[in-house]
Amino acid sequence: MANPHVVVVGGGFAGLRAVQTLKRIPVDVTLIDCRNFHLFQPLLYQVATGGLSPANITTPLRYILKRQRNVRVLLGTVTDFDVDSHVVIAGTRQISYDFLILAAGARSSYFGNPRWSKTAQCLKTIEDATEIRAQILAAFETAEKTAHPTEQRLELTFVIIGGGPTGVELAGAVAELAKDTLRREFRGVRPEGTRILLIEAADRILPTYPQKASQIVAKQLASLGVTVRSGCKVHDIRPNRVILERNGSSETIESHTTLWAAGIRASSLGRLLADRMGAILDESGRVKVQMDLSLPGHPNVFVLGDLACCPGKDDSPLPALAPVALQQGRYVGRLIAARLRGEDRPPFQYKDRGNLATVGRSAAVGVFGRVVIGGFVAWLIWLFVHLMLLVRHENRVLVFVQWAFNYITRNRGARLITASSRALEDETPDANTPRATD
Amino acid sequence: MANPHVVVVGGGFAGLRAVQTLKRIPVDVTLIDCRNFHLFQPLLYQVATGGLSPANITTPLRYILKRQRNVRVLLGTVTDFDVDSHVVIAGTRQISYDFLILAAGARSSYFGNPRWSKTAQCLKTIEDATEIRAQILAAFETAEKTAHPTEQRLELTFVIIGGGPTGVELAGAVAELAKDTLRREFRGVRPEGTRILLIEAADRILPTYPQKASQIVAKQLASLGVTVRSGCKVHDIRPNRVILERNGSSETIESHTTLWAAGIRASSLGRLLADRMGAILDESGRVKVQMDLSLPGHPNVFVLGDLACCPGKDDSPLPALAPVALQQGRYVGRLIAARLRGEDRPPFQYKDRGNLATVGRSAAVGVFGRVVIGGFVAWLIWLFVHLMLLVRHENRVLVFVQWAFNYITRNRGARLITASSRALEDETPDANTPRATD
Repeated sequence: MANPHVVVVGGGFAGLRAVQTLKRIPVDVTLIDCRNFHLFQPLLYQVATGGLSPANITTPLRYILKRQRNVRVLLGTVTDFDVDSHVVIAGTRQISYDFLILAAGARSSYFGNPRWSKTAQCLKTIEDATEIRAQILAAFETAEKTAHPTEQRLELTFVIIGGGPTGVELAGAVAELAKDTLRREFRGVRPEGTRILLIEAADRILPTYPQKASQIVAKQLASLGVTVRSGCKVHDIRPNRVILERNGSSETIESHTTLWAAGIRASSLGRLLADRMGAILDESGRVKVQMDLSLPGHPNVFVLGDLACCPGKDDSPLPALAPVALQQGRYVGRLIAARLRGEDRPPFQYKDRGNLATVGRSAAVGVFGRVVIGGFVAWLIWLFVHLMLLVRHENRVLVFVQWAFNYITRNRGARLITASSRALEDETPDANTPRATD
Repeated sequence: MANPHVVVVGGGFAGLRAVQTLKRIPVDVTLIDCRNFHLFQPLLYQVATGGLSPANITTPLRYILKRQRNVRVLLGTVTDFDVDSHVVIAGTRQISYDFLILAAGARSSYFGNPRWSKTAQCLKTIEDATEIRAQILAAFETAEKTAHPTEQRLELTFVIIGGGPTGVELAGAVAELAKDTLRREFRGVRPEGTRILLIEAADRILPTYPQKASQIVAKQLASLGVTVRSGCKVHDIRPNRVILERNGSSETIESHTTLWAAGIRASSLGRLLADRMGAILDESGRVKVQMDLSLPGHPNVFVLGDLACCPGKDDSPLPALAPVALQQGRYVGRLIAARLRGEDRPPFQYKDRGNLATVGRSAAVGVFGRVVIGGFVAWLIWLFVHLMLLVRHENRVLVFVQWAFNYITRNRGARLITASSRALEDETPDANTPRATD
């Protein structure tokens, strides 16, 4: 008789960990992802600011699972489910399952204003990161070309919307890029004068962290020259301007480059689960799961990671963080193994080992239970933890080398303006350098 | 009185070297390029085969020239010249010059068959390289998904057109990628069975090298499993097939992936020079220059690098190679410095220090005058020379680390399928992984 078939959708932290936990279990596993690599999202902002290359924070899924002979990787997109016959449909292929693990993650959400996405670039994929990199670098290039002070000011103003960890880390990195890396590289503009605004709707940045952590990070950002606007809601985003609202009065910030780090929404696979399996979604599109991460009424279907709405200690949903996803992946892997042995396991419980966020050079914050630490020590812990979490040894070495060079020279080597939709819209391709072909 | 103004178009080997040679000369230099980085083209094929990241073989032009205070870098495209008033026109900007150095390079050429460019991807830019990478990797992914042997054979056949150094290096790297790196990573296909065909119109590969070098490389390619077809002309390239012609008879090769490494044509700036300054072009669109690399009738306008048709020892034009470009750049820089002192310099003479081409692991060929060496020693020389030619220390370390890991593990870390026009055409974006935004 064939082994039970476990189909896993999504090769992020949750899905991949689930697959790896099933290594020595007598099951056949099929991992479906529409990308051929695992992405280490926590360092995506460093690709967006020219500090690292895309390959440094990604690892081919096939490479990771090369030696795990019970896994088959399929590049594809799940388009439907046939619930009655336990089949996943991915394009023209039909894959039947005994257990189904859904970990398709989340994407950026513009709070019901899809028009904003055309102006405010989000940061979720490798392509988003290289697009942001192109937009930031192109802004400096355009400023260098113009002699008009108003135009220069427009180009050298960057608005980052969202004061969570991603927004904070992005703001800090943009500030270091402008004020350290690009210093002295231009003749007509002074990148040190770049304005960076970080917009947060709550009354403080890092609203999910303890108050003390927010204060530490606010101070670190201020010393990098980042202007924090908390308690500010975004009223509208248009080309070249962002309109904010605060206590009923509105303010317009003129800026050519607006970056979006404000909200995420679960993958549209959640919607499909609601239609096909009667799943209930929360206001962020996440799928409400039971204590064992299974879908109500479907004990063999599990939802985890950013796609799941899983209650934590105080009944508020667990945050969309890598450690949550990793622990859920391992839990479901072990649960399936136990079920096959006819055993059961206690409900999932998230073990919070702490949170880290970095602002820049020697500046970070760490929250471990009730202890909040900042400064150099937090930064060293951040460095160490992130190096260790990278999947391949090679990437650890490559990232370490680039961080070391950055620490010494303040340079960021991966500063390429590559194929971008918006960054260089005024330039016609070809003419003097070989871009086009004949 | 202001310093004389030298305008340099193109930040490749020739243009950049000319700029750097003018470092301590009392001139103002403007470097115009439509990319913000210098590209180390000799290693582009390693990006195309997942061995290196784009940033590892590029360096921001502004970083290189940061400390050379007499240079201004402008990101732009030259669209016209006003010869009478000595002005370069780049979009809306007009830049007057006292000396003009044109080093805009070359692009791929499909021998008057522009339709072929849609099917056979060329390798000239970073975007070309990541596109080839996506196409190669996607072919294996598609093969894994299908159960049909004919379809699998189509996907696992790669045709590389052009048996010069680029084609040879690309063929060797594709073979190693398929047969070493991807080995054991698939369950439904055996990448070791990949067919790689290298097509060359001349009667041997590397036709510009000595016969012995061609023999050595042919043997090395054969041991990697590459099928060499010399004396074969391309009759037509269509989706999924290449039609060859040999001694009057024709042969059709069915292949989903065809790569173009056959011909180059000088930048369209040459055409503009012909129209505006009466330049004479050769059959490859290159500008015929005088012995001091100046344009006939325009002693202050110099053309160098792949854009120039410059006679060598036996009156045949110098090849499109980095050492030629570098020597020409330095020559013109020194010539301008001499002219400013009221002196003159002897005509340009290319000093051939040798040629190297690598096929793969421990396999390369080197030609030094009449001496031809192959095997491990040639490969070590190739490694050393290419590491030393890279522009930044950081890139030397990063490339060395990746080569070392590749040597030990045979893995190639930079295997991302990123935004590609053709590679994944059957996949709809989004659905389960976060690509699109709402």
